[in-house]
Amino acid sequence: MCRWLAYTGSPVLLEQALISPAHSFIEQSLHSPMGAETTNGDGFGVGWYDKAPEPGIFRSIEPAWNDSNLREVSAHIESGHFFAHVRAAIGSAVQQTNCHPFRHGRWLFMQNGFLADFAQVKRDLTMAIDPSLYPLIAGQADTETLFYLALTLGLEDDPPQAVAKAIGLVEHVGRDHGVEFPFQGTIATTDGERIWAFRYSSEGKSRSLFFSKDLPTLRSMYPQREVLQALGEDTRLIVSEPIGDLPGAWTEMPESSWAVAGGGEDALVSFKPVAP
Amino acid sequence: MCRWLAYTGSPVLLEQALISPAHSFIEQSLHSPMGAETTNGDGFGVGWYDKAPEPGIFRSIEPAWNDSNLREVSAHIESGHFFAHVRAAIGSAVQQTNCHPFRHGRWLFMQNGFLADFAQVKRDLTMAIDPSLYPLIAGQADTETLFYLALTLGLEDDPPQAVAKAIGLVEHVGRDHGVEFPFQGTIATTDGERIWAFRYSSEGKSRSLFFSKDLPTLRSMYPQREVLQALGEDTRLIVSEPIGDLPGAWTEMPESSWAVAGGGEDALVSFKPVAP
Amino acid sequence: MCRWLAYTGSPVLLEQALISPAHSFIEQSLHSPMGAETTNGDGFGVGWYDKAPEPGIFRSIEPAWNDSNLREVSAHIESGHFFAHVRAAIGSAVQQTNCHPFRHGRWLFMQNGFLADFAQVKRDLTMAIDPSLYPLIAGQADTETLFYLALTLGLEDDPPQAVAKAIGLVEHVGRDHGVEFPFQGTIATTDGERIWAFRYSSEGKSRSLFFSKDLPTLRSMYPQREVLQALGEDTRLIVSEPIGDLPGAWTEMPESSWAVAGGGEDALVSFKPVAP
Amino acid sequence: MCRWLAYTGSPVLLEQALISPAHSFIEQSLHSPMGAETTNGDGFGVGWYDKAPEPGIFRSIEPAWNDSNLREVSAHIESGHFFAHVRAAIGSAVQQTNCHPFRHGRWLFMQNGFLADFAQVKRDLTMAIDPSLYPLIAGQADTETLFYLALTLGLEDDPPQAVAKAIGLVEHVGRDHGVEFPFQGTIATTDGERIWAFRYSSEGKSRSLFFSKDLPTLRSMYPQREVLQALGEDTRLIVSEPIGDLPGAWTEMPESSWAVAGGGEDALVSFKPVAP
Repeated sequence: MCRWLAYTGSPVLLEQALISPAHSFIEQSLHSPMGAETTNGDGFGVGWYDKAPEPGIFRSIEPAWNDSNLREVSAHIESGHFFAHVRAAIGSAVQQTNCHPFRHGRWLFMQNGFLADFAQVKRDLTMAIDPSLYPLIAGQADTETLFYLALTLGLEDDPPQAVAKAIGLVEHVGRDHGVEFPFQGTIATTDGERIWAFRYSSEGKSRSLFFSKDLPTLRSMYPQREVLQALGEDTRLIVSEPIGDLPGAWTEMPESSWAVAGGGEDALVSFKPVAP
Repeated sequence: MCRWLAYTGSPVLLEQALISPAHSFIEQSLHSPMGAETTNGDGFGVGWYDKAPEPGIFRSIEPAWNDSNLREVSAHIESGHFFAHVRAAIGSAVQQTNCHPFRHGRWLFMQNGFLADFAQVKRDLTMAIDPSLYPLIAGQADTETLFYLALTLGLEDDPPQAVAKAIGLVEHVGRDHGVEFPFQGTIATTDGERIWAFRYSSEGKSRSLFFSKDLPTLRSMYPQREVLQALGEDTRLIVSEPIGDLPGAWTEMPESSWAVAGGGEDALVSFKPVAP
Repeated sequence: MCRWLAYTGSPVLLEQALISPAHSFIEQSLHSPMGAETTNGDGFGVGWYDKAPEPGIFRSIEPAWNDSNLREVSAHIESGHFFAHVRAAIGSAVQQTNCHPFRHGRWLFMQNGFLADFAQVKRDLTMAIDPSLYPLIAGQADTETLFYLALTLGLEDDPPQAVAKAIGLVEHVGRDHGVEFPFQGTIATTDGERIWAFRYSSEGKSRSLFFSKDLPTLRSMYPQREVLQALGEDTRLIVSEPIGDLPGAWTEMPESSWAVAGGGEDALVSFKPVAP
Repeated sequence: MCRWLAYTGSPVLLEQALISPAHSFIEQSLHSPMGAETTNGDGFGVGWYDKAPEPGIFRSIEPAWNDSNLREVSAHIESGHFFAHVRAAIGSAVQQTNCHPFRHGRWLFMQNGFLADFAQVKRDLTMAIDPSLYPLIAGQADTETLFYLALTLGLEDDPPQAVAKAIGLVEHVGRDHGVEFPFQGTIATTDGERIWAFRYSSEGKSRSLFFSKDLPTLRSMYPQREVLQALGEDTRLIVSEPIGDLPGAWTEMPESSWAVAGGGEDALVSFKPVAP
C-alpha cells in the first residue's frame, strides 16, 4: 500500500529524483512489483523545503503518472530536502486531504502501511489527540491521525520516542478492540533538516524500506556516473522501493528499526513501540 | 452560503427541477443574488430515491454549472423524491466528502448555513456522536457532524425533536466556548417519504427558505402552464431561493419554524432548539 | 490499451454488468492481465440508452476503480443497451473529452487500440471529416477522429461499410506518411438497437475481443446460475476481456472480423478495410 | 470573459502578485465587477520563467479561489516574468488543455475574449495553421487556434505583425461566414523577456486592459509603500482589471493599441489587423 521517497542533500530539481531515473518513483505509481498493491494510483503528494518558513505541499487525487502539473512543478522546483508519496487506498476515500505527506508547521509525515481495523479504533485514537490539535485534522486518513498522535506525544522534541509512543498507543487500543496486528508500515517524518524513517509492524512482516549507501561508497561503485559526482557527501535517499539502475546502491532497513539522516546526523537504531 | 432544493411528488427527470426552469437551481450555483455568497461553485450534490433500497448520491467538487456529467445524469434519472445542493465553502476544504447531501441508510441531510467557530466546538460535538456512528464520518464538514448528532439524538424516530436537540447541543457547546451565535441555517432531511425542513438561527436572522404553494392553488394562479397540469397534487418543492418564473408561487418559511411535506403529511410548525 | 464492454438485452442495473461479476469490468481497470497495458486508470466512460431520445454519457478522468459517482450511478441506472470503456492513455491527454464512448445523436462509438503515429496523420484525417461535423470534435483523441470519419463515410446508413472505409482511409494516409501498421484495435458502435463490433489490425495481431454465447447455450452450460435464468434470449455481451466466472461462456472473435448483435440481428462476418 | 495578468520585473513569489494584494487576481476569479462575466471559475493557469529552458505551466479546471495547490505553488515559486489567467468559459469545454496560457517552446500566449462563432470558422482557421504545428494542438479552445495561427504567421520573429495578421485572417474568414464582429479581446504573449499586449475588437468595444505606471512614478505617488521600494525600475504589470489598492497607479490601454514591456523595451503603439 503506497510508495514513498525521502531525499536530503544537494539541491536538485524534484524531477531528478521523481521522474528521470530508470524505474522512477512516478513509474512505481503505475507498476511497483515490490508493493503489496502493484498500482498506486489513488493520489500523490510532494512536500519540499526551500527558503520559505514552511514546506510547500502539492497533493492531488489524480494518478501521479497522469498529472501534467506534477511534471511541470517537478521540472521547476529545486530543493535539497523533500518527501514524495503515491497512494494505493484500499477502501478509504480518495481525496486531497487524505493524501500524504501531511504537514504541521515545519513538519512533514508520511506512511506506507495502515492502522488495522481503523474504523474500530478511530474514535479512541482521535480522542487521544491534544484538543488544540484536533481542529487541524483535515481528512479521515489513519496516517493523519497517527501524525497528530505523534505530535501530541512529543514529535517536535524527540521524534523516535514520540513515534514509539504513538505506535505503542495504536497497539494498545488495537488489542483492546481485538485487533491482532494493529500496526503495519514504514514511516518518514522530518523537520526540514533531519529525516527519521521507521520500519515496523505488529506482525513482524513490514513493508519494504531501503536507504541509499553514502556518496563516497556509491562513487567508488559507479565511478563513471556523472550524477553521483555532482551530489554532495550528505546526500541520502530513503525509499519504499529502489529507484534507478544502480544495483547494490541500496541497503535494506531491518525489521523493527529506525534511522535518521540529514542535518549532519546518520544513525540506524532498533525500534520498539512504547506502551502507554 | 449554499443553495439547496428538495422535491417530493410526481416522478420527474431531475433536470426538470434543476436545469430547465428560468433562474434554475444550476444557474443559482453561478449567480444567486439572494444568497449570502452569490456564487456557489465549491461543489454540488444530488441525492435521489427510486426503487433501490437506498438513495443514490452524486457529488462533485466541480462547480455545478460546469459539470457535464451532472447534466447527463439529470437528463436520465427520474425520481419523485430528491435533494440537490450547491456549495459555497468559505474556508473549509472543498472535497467530495464535504459535499451535501449526506447519507445514512435511507436518510439524506443537507444545510445552507454553518456551525459558527466550528474549529473550537468540533471536538466536543464529535465526541457526542454515538461511537457506533463515529467511524462513518467521511469528511470534516460541520453539516456532517450535525447530521450524525441528529442521528445520535433520534433522527430516525422523531426528526423534528432530534434536530431540535442537535441544534440545542450546538448552541450549548457554542456558548461554553464563547461563541455568540452558534447556529445558522436552513436544514432539510428526509427518509425517502417525507421531507422535514427547518429555518432557524441563533441570531434570529436566518438564511432564506421557501416552499411552493400546493398544486391546486398553483394551477388556479397559472392555468395555462402545462407543467403544472402534469404534476400530482402532492408535489412540493422547498428551496433556498425560488426557481422558475412563477411570481407568487412561493411562500416564505418564517423564522424559527419547521415544516414537513410528502408521504401524505403537510405541516408548518414553530421551531425551538432543545437544550441538553 | 483500454478495455471495453458492450451489452444488449434485458434491462439490468449497470452495476450488474460492470461491478458485481467476478473479475468485473471495474476490476479490469485496475488489473487486466490480458491487456496490452495492465492498468486502465486514465479515465472511463459509460453510455446508456433508455427512453430519452439520446443516450446518456458519463465520463470522467478519475480511475474507474476510485470513482464513487460511477458506483452510485451504476446502482441506479437500468438499461437494456449500454457501452462502457476504461482507458489506458499512453501519452495522449487524459481529459474528459478524450474519454470513450463518443456520442453523435443516437450513436455511440468506442475503441481499444490506436491510430499509429497519429500526430503525423491527424491533419490529413481531420481534413477528410465532413465540414459540417468538424466543429463537433470536442477533444483530440484518435478514436474521436475515426468516429467522425466513419460518420462522414456513412456510418448511419451502413456501419460495417463505413468503418471499413474509415479504416481503409486511415491505412492509406498512414502509408503515405510511412507508417507501417496504421491501424490497431477493436471497435464497437451502436445506434441504440444493434451493436456492431470489429476486430482488425493492419498487422494482423489485434487486441482481444470476445462475445458471450447465446442464452440458451449458457443456461444449459450453467443450469444453476440464477442470473442466467432472468436474462432474455437476446442478451449478448461483447467484451475486450471476459468478465465473471463462467469458463466456456465466451467465444473469441476471429482476427479481421465484424459482428452485429441486438435488435434481432446476429451475425459474424469477415472484415476487410476498403481503400479510398 | 476571463481575467489575465502579466508581470515582468524583479523576481517575486507568484503569490505576491496573485494572492496578497487587495482585490487580488485570485479574488477576481470569484468576483470581478469589471468583467463581462463576473465569475471566472472555469479553470486557471499560470506560466512562469526561471532558469529552466522553457517556462513552467500549471493549469487546472478547479476554480482558482479553491485550489490549494495553486496557493502552495504560488508561495514557493519565484519569478521575474510570468502570466496568470482565470477563465470564464461560456459554453466551451472546461478542460486543462483549454486553459490559458498556452505554451510553445519559450512562448506563452493568453487572451480575454473570443473568436466569434468559432464553430463556423474553426475548420478554415485550423487549416491555415502550418502542418508542422497542427499536431501540437492539444485542446479545442479558440485562443489556442489563434496562438498557432500567430506562430504560423511569424510570432517568433515579429509578434505585433504576426498578431495583426492572425487577427486579420480571423476577421477575413469570419466575414466570409457572415460573422459581424469576428474578434474580441485582449491578448498577451511573451518570449520570456518581453511581453506584448494587445487591445482590439472588431466592434471597437474591447475588453478592459491596464498597465501599471513606471516604478519611479509609483514611488512618488506612494512614497510610504514598502513593496514599491523593493521592486526594480523595470517592473511592469499588465492586467485585465487593476489589482491592489493604489488608485491612479494604472493607465488604461486605448482601444486598438498594442504595447511592449520588459527586456528593456517600453512602447505603446496603435494596432490594426492586417488582412490576408
